[in-house]
Amino acid sequence: MTESSESASEDAGEGWRRERRGREGRERRERGEARFDGFGEPPRGERARQGREDARRRGRGNEVRYDRKVGRRERGEGPTIAESVIGEIVYGTNPVLEALRQNRRALFALYVQEGADGSGKTRGDSEIVRLAEERNVTVKSASKHDLNMACDNKPHQGVVLDAEALDIPILEDLPSWDGVGRAPVWLALDEIVDPQNLGAMLRSAHFLGVDGVVCCAKNSAPFNATVSKASAGAMEAQIVHQTGVMHRFLAKARDEGWDVVGAAADARAENVSDFVVSAPTLLVMGNEGSGLRTNVRRACNRLVAIPAGINKARGVDSLNVSVAAGILIHRFVSARADA
Amino acid sequence: MTESSESASEDAGEGWRRERRGREGRERRERGEARFDGFGEPPRGERARQGREDARRRGRGNEVRYDRKVGRRERGEGPTIAESVIGEIVYGTNPVLEALRQNRRALFALYVQEGADGSGKTRGDSEIVRLAEERNVTVKSASKHDLNMACDNKPHQGVVLDAEALDIPILEDLPSWDGVGRAPVWLALDEIVDPQNLGAMLRSAHFLGVDGVVCCAKNSAPFNATVSKASAGAMEAQIVHQTGVMHRFLAKARDEGWDVVGAAADARAENVSDFVVSAPTLLVMGNEGSGLRTNVRRACNRLVAIPAGINKARGVDSLNVSVAAGILIHRFVSARADA
Repeated sequence: MTESSESASEDAGEGWRRERRGREGRERRERGEARFDGFGEPPRGERARQGREDARRRGRGNEVRYDRKVGRRERGEGPTIAESVIGEIVYGTNPVLEALRQNRRALFALYVQEGADGSGKTRGDSEIVRLAEERNVTVKSASKHDLNMACDNKPHQGVVLDAEALDIPILEDLPSWDGVGRAPVWLALDEIVDPQNLGAMLRSAHFLGVDGVVCCAKNSAPFNATVSKASAGAMEAQIVHQTGVMHRFLAKARDEGWDVVGAAADARAENVSDFVVSAPTLLVMGNEGSGLRTNVRRACNRLVAIPAGINKARGVDSLNVSVAAGILIHRFVSARADA
Repeated sequence: MTESSESASEDAGEGWRRERRGREGRERRERGEARFDGFGEPPRGERARQGREDARRRGRGNEVRYDRKVGRRERGEGPTIAESVIGEIVYGTNPVLEALRQNRRALFALYVQEGADGSGKTRGDSEIVRLAEERNVTVKSASKHDLNMACDNKPHQGVVLDAEALDIPILEDLPSWDGVGRAPVWLALDEIVDPQNLGAMLRSAHFLGVDGVVCCAKNSAPFNATVSKASAGAMEAQIVHQTGVMHRFLAKARDEGWDVVGAAADARAENVSDFVVSAPTLLVMGNEGSGLRTNVRRACNRLVAIPAGINKARGVDSLNVSVAAGILIHRFVSARADA
């Protein structure tokens, strides 16, 4: 035990351990014994025992930590889905189906859960595989666990698509209206930061028949897989635009004859139930927490509010922004239909 | 190195390591050297170095894993918030404020983030501390990290309450209406499993002025902190009831003269924009994925739908359930106000 006695200094301490382990390994290999030296394929059971030993030494009882990445490498398995993705991940039946249908993104690969590959576990799945083959997208089979890991345990419903990021075009001008037929209704989303809210609003806008959506380029939730899933694929189907400076965009729209209507719980705001749409209308929804920014509110020429009911409590003084947007869009689009 | 050579068998291998480590430690202690023997308070830096060494040996580069629980125990620190909670956790300004105001739960302790303890970082915080003191609830200061851990990294806004689980009373009969004033509007939630949806619907129901809410006892999201947060405290403020068998409850309500209105995208359904409320009305929302169950739908005497707009896409064929509920409740309550 002379080596250990000499190694009171810390670096030397590491040195002797490594050296001794190396020597032990060489000696064992020379004797033809299988004791694992820490490199290459470990003998069966050795790895788990080593984990238990480490855990005991560090006072963690029998808890074993096992590094999956090292395990994959040692077993000679390929990279995970997350490691081999070229673009970004899109998951869930509706987002994947719409991404394939709309064909707005470059598509790199489709991962389908084992046992659901085209045999038609659900209508969506078989349609997805058919569309992917039509578009010459490589279809790969993957375990549920691998899909879970790739999606960070979000509800992928057995399908994950590797696709180019969605292009969000910049909108300079709103389309002009010739005064014939229904007045257009657009939705402007200013600094919506919660992907669930953003997704739900895109879904409502698309389902209820809004003519267009514009978001501000900064301080908004990114248009990623979470938003696409929350939108039930509406993010893929509805072309969403962005603008750099929201209040300038709104002021320009107002100058061009649009009704720019801010959603605000304000005493001067019109009641949504009495709201009449006569001109091209742009509904502006502000941030979840702070509402419309001062600049953005100033750019509006009308305000609209959803009044609280009779048993209004002190604490609950507002609606969820996506619920409020749903009520407002529904009224705007219906009011327009009546006109 | 005779010890190691003798220990080719695996169990003996563990034995000699432990034995040698013990002997080395004894020898070092006899020499008065501080080398860490794996027990008691490790010398400064030793723990981290040991972690690095383990990581290298297991092929994980320089990644260090450090067990916080062991660390707390070794440093003689007390249990974490999660370990010392008596009831369940309520987090976020609105839920905590409403839980304190409504006084429907037994309250065990209030944890406030350091630096926000009553000095009034926000209006809510100082009101929360004032109310807690009024109710003789122990107010404890905690680090942001400890609050994050207690809430599983959900947005606690600096306040966490340890409270008894909320009592959800069973409702046998709907209150009878004397025909004077506005007809009551109730909301029935059948098998809503997503806590965000459940919370958003409770918030809408409370804000828009629904007279009561009833949920089914089974296969629904539990009334926990996530729902309370998503409801912005409405779960605390609005008394929610439950029923064991939803379709039987609805059939009984219908027999007692209530209009039981199921939300369903059905050809026979009335358009929400034309919906008239004349009798006491119970709006029934079904599960997010599958909609109304057959039994529940049969128990309804009217159906209501939100029609899709003109640019309806194939894929996006529905609204988020909480958005749909918001639009329907708003119409029902406003239509009633008109009557």
